[in-house]
Amino acid sequence: MTLEPPIIVPLDHNRSYPIYVTSNQLSKFNHYAKGINKEKKVVVLYQPATHQYASLISDTLTQQGVKVFQHEIIEGEQAKSWTVTKTLLDQLFEFNLERQDILIAVGGGVVGDLVGFVASIYLRGISFIQVPTTLLSQVDAAVGGKTGINHDKGKNLIGSFYQPQMVFSDTNTLKTLPPREIRSGLAEVIKYGVIMDTPLFEMIETHIETIKLLDIDAAPELWRTLVTTSCQNKATIVSQDEKESGLRMNLNFGHTIGHAIESVYQYEYTHGECVALGMKAAMQISVHRKWIQLSDYNRLLTLLEKLSFPLSIPKQDHSPFLKRMTHDKKVINGKIRIILPTKIGSVKRVDDITPDELQLALSTLMDENTK
Amino acid sequence: MTLEPPIIVPLDHNRSYPIYVTSNQLSKFNHYAKGINKEKKVVVLYQPATHQYASLISDTLTQQGVKVFQHEIIEGEQAKSWTVTKTLLDQLFEFNLERQDILIAVGGGVVGDLVGFVASIYLRGISFIQVPTTLLSQVDAAVGGKTGINHDKGKNLIGSFYQPQMVFSDTNTLKTLPPREIRSGLAEVIKYGVIMDTPLFEMIETHIETIKLLDIDAAPELWRTLVTTSCQNKATIVSQDEKESGLRMNLNFGHTIGHAIESVYQYEYTHGECVALGMKAAMQISVHRKWIQLSDYNRLLTLLEKLSFPLSIPKQDHSPFLKRMTHDKKVINGKIRIILPTKIGSVKRVDDITPDELQLALSTLMDENTK
Repeated sequence: MTLEPPIIVPLDHNRSYPIYVTSNQLSKFNHYAKGINKEKKVVVLYQPATHQYASLISDTLTQQGVKVFQHEIIEGEQAKSWTVTKTLLDQLFEFNLERQDILIAVGGGVVGDLVGFVASIYLRGISFIQVPTTLLSQVDAAVGGKTGINHDKGKNLIGSFYQPQMVFSDTNTLKTLPPREIRSGLAEVIKYGVIMDTPLFEMIETHIETIKLLDIDAAPELWRTLVTTSCQNKATIVSQDEKESGLRMNLNFGHTIGHAIESVYQYEYTHGECVALGMKAAMQISVHRKWIQLSDYNRLLTLLEKLSFPLSIPKQDHSPFLKRMTHDKKVINGKIRIILPTKIGSVKRVDDITPDELQLALSTLMDENTK
Repeated sequence: MTLEPPIIVPLDHNRSYPIYVTSNQLSKFNHYAKGINKEKKVVVLYQPATHQYASLISDTLTQQGVKVFQHEIIEGEQAKSWTVTKTLLDQLFEFNLERQDILIAVGGGVVGDLVGFVASIYLRGISFIQVPTTLLSQVDAAVGGKTGINHDKGKNLIGSFYQPQMVFSDTNTLKTLPPREIRSGLAEVIKYGVIMDTPLFEMIETHIETIKLLDIDAAPELWRTLVTTSCQNKATIVSQDEKESGLRMNLNFGHTIGHAIESVYQYEYTHGECVALGMKAAMQISVHRKWIQLSDYNRLLTLLEKLSFPLSIPKQDHSPFLKRMTHDKKVINGKIRIILPTKIGSVKRVDDITPDELQLALSTLMDENTK
């Protein structure tokens, strides 16, 4: 079987890894996972919603004579907890997993983040493979080695930088997602366009009428291209700044304000919806600084509107948002870092943001008459 | 103030770090910790026994205008637990520690392993400094970036590879240690001699009558040299094989069998005593394979005897030891890896060890008439 060439995330110390973006290849997983052989034990981890994909993968490996265990993780974001992490570690010790064995995370960001974290601390680190099954995780979370669980004080506050051995996406898994979940992933795709990839942004504009159907079957090649191009952009950034000391922060465009909204509204909005709101707000600050043309702001707004993203939030006191922002992981010496676009395809990292600017951005989101 | 040049552990990605081996310099800690300034918050962590050193360090930093918190960890090995790890993380969030802030671990291996692990997973990693106060941690645990906590199934089974920003040893802290604790560290010093450093081994032989007094004040320069030379050896190995894929395994000489003894006897022997027993047993296998001369075996035995290490354990069934060895982290495909000396200053990594050989080695330890 000839495989299409993967995207490679180039890293040192033999840690470079391939990202495969496929269609309908889950039952051929064993052809892609070249590192897995009879000498290794494999644990396939999934949440209830991804059980069918986990079984497909397990079957292909079992047929190869690999010793496969399956383990179900509890549903939802609550799985990213200290307690579940411990339960999972206990289970791996029960399976007698050794250093050369492999975990496979089948599911969305929750499974990937949790399993990646567990892989990074079990016996000081064992290999893991990401099989993201949501658009959001295929274009973002599964690539780049950020792992983590939540703490009472916020999301992803406990974790590690730990790269997978391979990322394997199958766009077929997107077909069963609720449309709102697909839209959530699109916010990150648009983000890559704004921060570094003008042609991607233009491509989305060209095909927006098709994309907004949120129907994978209507344009399978287009959706594969969206995933592939997003992964390529992320690979480029991660290979240059794996641990987020500079460039990688650009990926946080829309996320500083977005995370605050996500947290204040207790996850009533999807991650993508919060990022969309955050991108709008950050772009508004750019406009106010005269760093970007109003026409670029309008191009972004048009895309978000066509995709039916919520573009405003109920009017309320700003302070809970501001408080959350000062508790973000990226805060340095109490200064809030934010990414501001200068045109479509280019951004700047800023740490001199003023309280007034943040107030302005939040006001924009709360004023339903303003775009 | 002019500082003596440190040993450097050379690592990529700006992670190289200095090891200072000083005498009576704790109250000048601020001169060594160049990365600490008023912009950073510092948390000094210690166990009850090292409170005085933690206070000295805190004072020097506070005088510099640095914001310092102190936090006491519960006493003993039980601190290396999942629960204590969580308590510590909670505490750091309470202190509002940010990514650029710093932890300082003041104490023996327990504090260093635990704090290193916490540093590696708090906000996906913050800086930490090792201030080892026992001989064992000064010559081994504090250098090289192995962090970890214990699990019901064994020691250090959960953890990460995460390098400190600096290691600062003061041999003055050794003076208050019980003699048995000093001896425990000496087993690791002798280990470096056997695996890679003939001159160090000879130096120990030359000065054994002084060393066996276990009195730092009797020969301060000698003790500093023992610590410095050990750190130099460890730095050499770690910089070539940070994550233990090959060469670094040599440091496990004496540890495969030693860990099994440690675990079966529920830590009734010190770590160093177990390593001494393990070195004797492994060397015995080498002799049996005719890989090493009996005279070299006797040189090792002479040193261990002069230092009053226990060289035998009570007669008993071998199976609990064998079971523990197959559960070791270093087991690959069920094969037990062991390090066997070929002469003083040189070892080989072996994974074809037979059950008979292990039985022989254990028998040697249980026969009080055999050396």
